[in-house]
Amino acid sequence: MRFASVRTAAGASWGVVANGAVHPIDAATAEAFPTLKHAIAAAALKAVHDRHESWDAIPVDEVEWAPLIPEPGKILCVGLNYEKHREETARPVVAHPTIFTRFADSQTGHRQPIVRPIVSEKLDYEGELALVIGKRGRAIAARDALDHIAGFSCYNDGSVRDWQHHTMQFTPGKNFPGTGAFGPWLVTPDEFGDIPSKRIRTRLNGEVMQDAHFSELIFGLDRLIEYVSAFTPLEPGDVIVTGTPGGVGAKRKPPVFMKPGDHVEVEIEGIGVLRNGIADELAP
Amino acid sequence: MRFASVRTAAGASWGVVANGAVHPIDAATAEAFPTLKHAIAAAALKAVHDRHESWDAIPVDEVEWAPLIPEPGKILCVGLNYEKHREETARPVVAHPTIFTRFADSQTGHRQPIVRPIVSEKLDYEGELALVIGKRGRAIAARDALDHIAGFSCYNDGSVRDWQHHTMQFTPGKNFPGTGAFGPWLVTPDEFGDIPSKRIRTRLNGEVMQDAHFSELIFGLDRLIEYVSAFTPLEPGDVIVTGTPGGVGAKRKPPVFMKPGDHVEVEIEGIGVLRNGIADELAP
Repeated sequence: MRFASVRTAAGASWGVVANGAVHPIDAATAEAFPTLKHAIAAAALKAVHDRHESWDAIPVDEVEWAPLIPEPGKILCVGLNYEKHREETARPVVAHPTIFTRFADSQTGHRQPIVRPIVSEKLDYEGELALVIGKRGRAIAARDALDHIAGFSCYNDGSVRDWQHHTMQFTPGKNFPGTGAFGPWLVTPDEFGDIPSKRIRTRLNGEVMQDAHFSELIFGLDRLIEYVSAFTPLEPGDVIVTGTPGGVGAKRKPPVFMKPGDHVEVEIEGIGVLRNGIADELAP
Repeated sequence: MRFASVRTAAGASWGVVANGAVHPIDAATAEAFPTLKHAIAAAALKAVHDRHESWDAIPVDEVEWAPLIPEPGKILCVGLNYEKHREETARPVVAHPTIFTRFADSQTGHRQPIVRPIVSEKLDYEGELALVIGKRGRAIAARDALDHIAGFSCYNDGSVRDWQHHTMQFTPGKNFPGTGAFGPWLVTPDEFGDIPSKRIRTRLNGEVMQDAHFSELIFGLDRLIEYVSAFTPLEPGDVIVTGTPGGVGAKRKPPVFMKPGDHVEVEIEGIGVLRNGIADELAP
């Protein structure tokens, strides 16, 4: 099953993705589950999916996409979770996942611009697998962790490198508005299937910049959920962005940064392609 | 003017602090401004204050306190913002504030326990001045920044040191539930008066562990607001926790950590005393 958050003439909505179209929820469903997050929390995805065939269909080429979860309670991002990326950043091997955070208002949707802020020219891509939490938990054991996942999507953890490295804390460079692209849709675990065998690629203007399989993750999804939930409760709709492979722009020789007119794609096998153009910020 | 968030028999509430008592808002006020954050956003603090004299009074010794802002949209914490603390942590001088984040559910109120998690014995105090944003803004100039402050309070940025230093990102050690104490009340800028001349002290079991004036801040409040709002919009109710002075427990010889039965106080001249006992987590 696939689900997306969208904007329609009537405002923010969400719906079922099937047969090349988004089917926005009807009024009765919107009353019960105003957002995708509400339906996830109520374990109602299957029930909603069962009703979509009688709803309107917007062809995917005509959809206005929102960030998959527009207002997660928590967005936890993982740094340095592929060996090649750790090596290119010259960071030491550590025994625990590196965790930083994003605010919800730094996100953007599929086919919306990723915004290069006025204050920087060092906007970089980071293609990543995102997981959405489906079930509340604290101190979740790794063996139970996959049961807490509602589904998967693509994430471009757009990074403003000079602001990321102002100090040792990444927060500033990871929170500019319009830098975290999330979508296009949620794919439920039953449909996504085996995780390690899946491939992720990031393309900038059509050229492959990152290319890895999830078997290369240093900390797998089960261990990430175990670690994060050890220090903070996870709630339905929370997002874990699981880390980026080697090949980021800042570590290329010469470095490559994204600029207006570029387009960037994160493709994950079994999900699809998250595509964004780059635009300059007009005014902060 | 002073305001606090509290728990009453009827549930979460807030009110005016005056004459040694909290005056919880009446039903009509609660309809308009269900939380202190709502009243801040509506610039209604003065109007609410004008009405408190006819309301019930709970003596401060009998109040059940909540975190001053229980659900801020953003909590931005500043690291290494006093020279003595930077020196004791052996961190390099940097040209920008060090910014990390806390989730709202890591907070606790005045006279509520600060919780030592099951997974650590390295719970440390950090007495700090917190400011609450009163007016929305992005890219706020330092010269305008103080106009965006609704008021001030005490914060104990309780830190689980081993988890803080698992990697270079502080997130895990700064987000355990019940570790961020915030209160007791908001003091508006007109009442707080001159900032640099005010003194902050942290006492553990009565012994002074931290003692500084805000004139010692490396980045003053105006520069913190300017820097943070350069990368993320600030909204009413958002909180900036401005950094801790030298004297943290982890850097003492021998190190001092907080344990069940201890009590810790953060006293700020012009505000008052934030006091918390320490309790062991019962189950995560």
